[in-house]
Amino acid sequence: MIIVMKTGVGRDLIDPVVAQVEEVGLHAHLIDGSERTIIGVVGLPMPPTLDELFAGFEGVEQVVRITKKFKLAGWDFHPQKTVITLDDVTIGGDAVTIIAGPCSVESRDQTLEAAHAVRAAGATILRGGAYKPRTSPYEFRGLGVPGLEILAEAREQTGLKIITEVMTPSDVEVVGQYTDIFQIGARNCQNYLLLEEVGKAGKPVMLKRGLSLLIEEWLLAAEYVMAQGNPNVILCERGIRTYETATRNTLDVSAVPVLQSLSHLPVFIDPSHAAGKRAFVPALAKAGIAAGADGLMLEVHPDPDHALSDGAQSLDEPTFAALLPQLAQIAQAVGRTLPLPTGAAV
Amino acid sequence: MIIVMKTGVGRDLIDPVVAQVEEVGLHAHLIDGSERTIIGVVGLPMPPTLDELFAGFEGVEQVVRITKKFKLAGWDFHPQKTVITLDDVTIGGDAVTIIAGPCSVESRDQTLEAAHAVRAAGATILRGGAYKPRTSPYEFRGLGVPGLEILAEAREQTGLKIITEVMTPSDVEVVGQYTDIFQIGARNCQNYLLLEEVGKAGKPVMLKRGLSLLIEEWLLAAEYVMAQGNPNVILCERGIRTYETATRNTLDVSAVPVLQSLSHLPVFIDPSHAAGKRAFVPALAKAGIAAGADGLMLEVHPDPDHALSDGAQSLDEPTFAALLPQLAQIAQAVGRTLPLPTGAAV
Amino acid sequence: MIIVMKTGVGRDLIDPVVAQVEEVGLHAHLIDGSERTIIGVVGLPMPPTLDELFAGFEGVEQVVRITKKFKLAGWDFHPQKTVITLDDVTIGGDAVTIIAGPCSVESRDQTLEAAHAVRAAGATILRGGAYKPRTSPYEFRGLGVPGLEILAEAREQTGLKIITEVMTPSDVEVVGQYTDIFQIGARNCQNYLLLEEVGKAGKPVMLKRGLSLLIEEWLLAAEYVMAQGNPNVILCERGIRTYETATRNTLDVSAVPVLQSLSHLPVFIDPSHAAGKRAFVPALAKAGIAAGADGLMLEVHPDPDHALSDGAQSLDEPTFAALLPQLAQIAQAVGRTLPLPTGAAV
Amino acid sequence: MIIVMKTGVGRDLIDPVVAQVEEVGLHAHLIDGSERTIIGVVGLPMPPTLDELFAGFEGVEQVVRITKKFKLAGWDFHPQKTVITLDDVTIGGDAVTIIAGPCSVESRDQTLEAAHAVRAAGATILRGGAYKPRTSPYEFRGLGVPGLEILAEAREQTGLKIITEVMTPSDVEVVGQYTDIFQIGARNCQNYLLLEEVGKAGKPVMLKRGLSLLIEEWLLAAEYVMAQGNPNVILCERGIRTYETATRNTLDVSAVPVLQSLSHLPVFIDPSHAAGKRAFVPALAKAGIAAGADGLMLEVHPDPDHALSDGAQSLDEPTFAALLPQLAQIAQAVGRTLPLPTGAAV
Repeated sequence: MIIVMKTGVGRDLIDPVVAQVEEVGLHAHLIDGSERTIIGVVGLPMPPTLDELFAGFEGVEQVVRITKKFKLAGWDFHPQKTVITLDDVTIGGDAVTIIAGPCSVESRDQTLEAAHAVRAAGATILRGGAYKPRTSPYEFRGLGVPGLEILAEAREQTGLKIITEVMTPSDVEVVGQYTDIFQIGARNCQNYLLLEEVGKAGKPVMLKRGLSLLIEEWLLAAEYVMAQGNPNVILCERGIRTYETATRNTLDVSAVPVLQSLSHLPVFIDPSHAAGKRAFVPALAKAGIAAGADGLMLEVHPDPDHALSDGAQSLDEPTFAALLPQLAQIAQAVGRTLPLPTGAAV
Repeated sequence: MIIVMKTGVGRDLIDPVVAQVEEVGLHAHLIDGSERTIIGVVGLPMPPTLDELFAGFEGVEQVVRITKKFKLAGWDFHPQKTVITLDDVTIGGDAVTIIAGPCSVESRDQTLEAAHAVRAAGATILRGGAYKPRTSPYEFRGLGVPGLEILAEAREQTGLKIITEVMTPSDVEVVGQYTDIFQIGARNCQNYLLLEEVGKAGKPVMLKRGLSLLIEEWLLAAEYVMAQGNPNVILCERGIRTYETATRNTLDVSAVPVLQSLSHLPVFIDPSHAAGKRAFVPALAKAGIAAGADGLMLEVHPDPDHALSDGAQSLDEPTFAALLPQLAQIAQAVGRTLPLPTGAAV
Repeated sequence: MIIVMKTGVGRDLIDPVVAQVEEVGLHAHLIDGSERTIIGVVGLPMPPTLDELFAGFEGVEQVVRITKKFKLAGWDFHPQKTVITLDDVTIGGDAVTIIAGPCSVESRDQTLEAAHAVRAAGATILRGGAYKPRTSPYEFRGLGVPGLEILAEAREQTGLKIITEVMTPSDVEVVGQYTDIFQIGARNCQNYLLLEEVGKAGKPVMLKRGLSLLIEEWLLAAEYVMAQGNPNVILCERGIRTYETATRNTLDVSAVPVLQSLSHLPVFIDPSHAAGKRAFVPALAKAGIAAGADGLMLEVHPDPDHALSDGAQSLDEPTFAALLPQLAQIAQAVGRTLPLPTGAAV
Repeated sequence: MIIVMKTGVGRDLIDPVVAQVEEVGLHAHLIDGSERTIIGVVGLPMPPTLDELFAGFEGVEQVVRITKKFKLAGWDFHPQKTVITLDDVTIGGDAVTIIAGPCSVESRDQTLEAAHAVRAAGATILRGGAYKPRTSPYEFRGLGVPGLEILAEAREQTGLKIITEVMTPSDVEVVGQYTDIFQIGARNCQNYLLLEEVGKAGKPVMLKRGLSLLIEEWLLAAEYVMAQGNPNVILCERGIRTYETATRNTLDVSAVPVLQSLSHLPVFIDPSHAAGKRAFVPALAKAGIAAGADGLMLEVHPDPDHALSDGAQSLDEPTFAALLPQLAQIAQAVGRTLPLPTGAAV
């Protein structure tokens, strides 16, 4: 950590800073520049609040933290890439993983039809919301437990694994009875008590990026899950909020290489929520795989024009089926694979 | 609502849209322009998901919603400004209201000292966190119930009302036993189950703006609280996330007149979290009152250099005491008052 | 165009709006909703300032423009994709085009070495700045005309076409004597007099996206060039400014499909300026091609550690050479080609 | 400057960095932390490109610049606040300064009427555009020289000083023959050759903030003007681009105290362009004065409903006249004055 003192500040303000550094068991190295003094702080462990503490001291202009605040999510303590295995489905390995399905579980028929269709095309995990966070209190909020039961039936019929969102700590138990992977939505990415609760539940957790979360904050959110002993966190970029309105959100495709440089956790892309319009989804899906993502999460609906939520951004089944072989070729171009089932459109 | 069809789209795609409009009990007016058809949809009630539904139809380019999605928070159903009364403390009336106190309740001494100091200067409500959302799992997270007890003691000693944050639905009951006003933090602004829970609890709720929330989304979050029968919501602008890094967040001072044009709810400004640096807090506090805010929420600490959280943005007590008379003068210039206690610094 | 009146507004305020509509030769269709009146405006031509004009009228809440403001850049008046041909180099055709070279022309040796290296790897156009816009007045600003002469020599030696930036109208003539393509930098994307000047000069123009330009504003900037009779505009996405600081800018890869839905102009991606760090450049380059870009612009330097500008984001020559075969495979996966010279690394 | 090496990097990569530091005449201090080495660089002068240079070196993770890049705009070399005097009009002194007038000079009558009205209410400088940057090439672009002549006549009739925009270097001479202050618009804030040209012209320059400019970049743009020997630069915050769409731009009112902490230059607020809607302008004007701005620039039009540009955000004359006495009271509350003419509305 480096503490930059203001121009012209003297020993009367520098000494209390140095004293405080020593008090917490670290060492201070002073560099006297031509205009100001810089204090290098070395030693371990570096308490996470230390920068905040020194920022409040009189005479301090800036505190620059060098050690990252996340630990479990970083390469230093876990030099191998995280690979998550759910029976025959692998996440973070050589193959890229396709999660697909409707935004919401609306009915048994709709969900089962979508499940069979995405399975036939090459997806291995089924998505579908039984509990939906909605911007307005007057919108459709999901079927709840009956929705979870439909997902479980779809799993049984198709062999797909399932992922579904959990929105509040008290639902973790019931959702955990059905789902294979917990999904934490963008709005709950810093709902820390929920993160800890899914951390304790033990199953893999997909953590979608908050709407305007910095990448470091996102990894710290993952750290909340991991600090409960659950190493299986998947990060999913789904677009960030920017000034541009041509798309629902702005896909930050750079998040893929940035996260991979900082963390061993698998990284997914959700092109549906990023685009907000189905016409743009295939291009973003391809970009995600090309950038090195470990997988995609895509909204696919049997009848997007009549979906109860997110219809405008859902692919229909033929478009999805036609997209996967292209994704497989791109996967290969970047040294990955995307195994397609026999009989899939090629 | 207006549905804009794509250029050159014909009756085969227009008719299904019109049919759907009629099906939900509304009426469609077609305007044939030189290049495209526009469908005006009129009638009430206008279901909140209708725009999303039509956005998914083939041939639709754009859906423009005219009716606002929020109802209870808007002027149409509540043409008087909301005034909240807690014994002798009024929020949203002629007088502006000052909430002040430390970021976290760190100890009994620190909190009581802060309470007496902010009371003497002119605050009428004490802030202080007993449950703290922290970006990293390794930081100080508040004292919990013992912190709530300290706040209650401060209230008893000073006559100040208290406001403190609640982070999760299962804590609403215990926090409600102590606090006068629930605070919902920026990270939980779209934690809908928490919003409903504080909505049911009946006490006033201060809803801080999410880090990148649109004003309409913010009012819809308020709607979640109000839909539970709780009309007493206070909106608090605390800075939004932008590209600028000179301040911790960017205070969107325009939110004050914009909200006042859309809603009858009281609007506060939190200059401390917006600025992130104490040197900039007084200017932002003054700007907030001048823009017409109903009150301010300010971080004040007896010893900011050693605060456990947010020290860099906390005012010390003398600076706070010196600020209030200036705020009182600005309040007067904009047709409000800020009554100061006898003996306050003037 | 749709003019939305405020709730409860009556004929006294509606009539002047309708009168103004008729005055400019258009027709007004009134739709009386349950709460307000909406005025549909039809007819052609729709003056570009009309929305601004009506927005100022009393009683008007909102004006929604439906007809796009750009014309020459849109599909309506030019239903074929624009293909630009410079001798044997084609932009916007089936093959994707690689532009590469140093940020600045620093010396004859550096530029010639870079030119030969990027040519051998598969680039067909050489980039290099002779006039550099720099954030600080104290930084290296380019060699000027001697720099242009070095570029011309590189063209002669390698057969590469050249592209270089022009910063001010009075330099258009001299730069035009050397360059094959004018580059307009992000900072000058709305420097309208410069746009008109390069529009008149006749040679193709690459228009980089301004740091926070909306896509529609960008197409209107292209319209400035095209309105001077120059149809050969290339749009280059180079990252937009967002709150995220892990990369220099945020690559808006969605701009590729969005632009392609709105415009017939070729779209390029500049992963170097978007990333700001060379480690992230290859992933973004691949994402750009996968998303359907017509080409890439990449910074490549013989000795990035000692570049006078943008060293941190420049690829060295071996990394560039290794990247192209991967890009060629992705191009193929999305139905394009990237022809590599005999002897290029495969 | 501090150079942070990557974790585990050894002397083979550290030594070339140190050698380069010494080569440019500076000194390197090494701090060996538990995980990595940090290099403190001290000495003067610190070349502006040095951070960029080191960022490109192998093994370097991050370069943190401590010394600000701007010099002339900063307090270090100019410890008194800049006060600009134009006969009886003072900018940056105790009194706040009101600039008002129409967006564009549309006609002699419109401009003269506006001039007399704003003069009577308390403005001392008249604004009005003769050259207008427009997003679309098909919009009204100003009257040019005849517009400048109208402004000069208004000055003669009213005694107001005038400010008008210049858009390109070749117009600086003609605009300089008429105007008292050059205005550089937001889109041209980094048009460096234009900045240098107005720098040479000698008259005061108002530099509007670019749409997404960092405060440091803005001060560096001012530095371009000042480096030509022109010390009289006025900074004008006019809203930045964010995700929020309720206002045209987001007024960054924090820019006032931030700039004042970094620079001696006068700071203005333009609430009209920030708000984009006239209803919000008074609140933002008040906020600006309360935050400590040295003045305001306001759009005022005799008939906003029929303005050729920016009608929606222009105040009518009675609203403007009623606003000034309130601003005067706020100015007083923050230790400034706003002298109003005898007979102004109070």
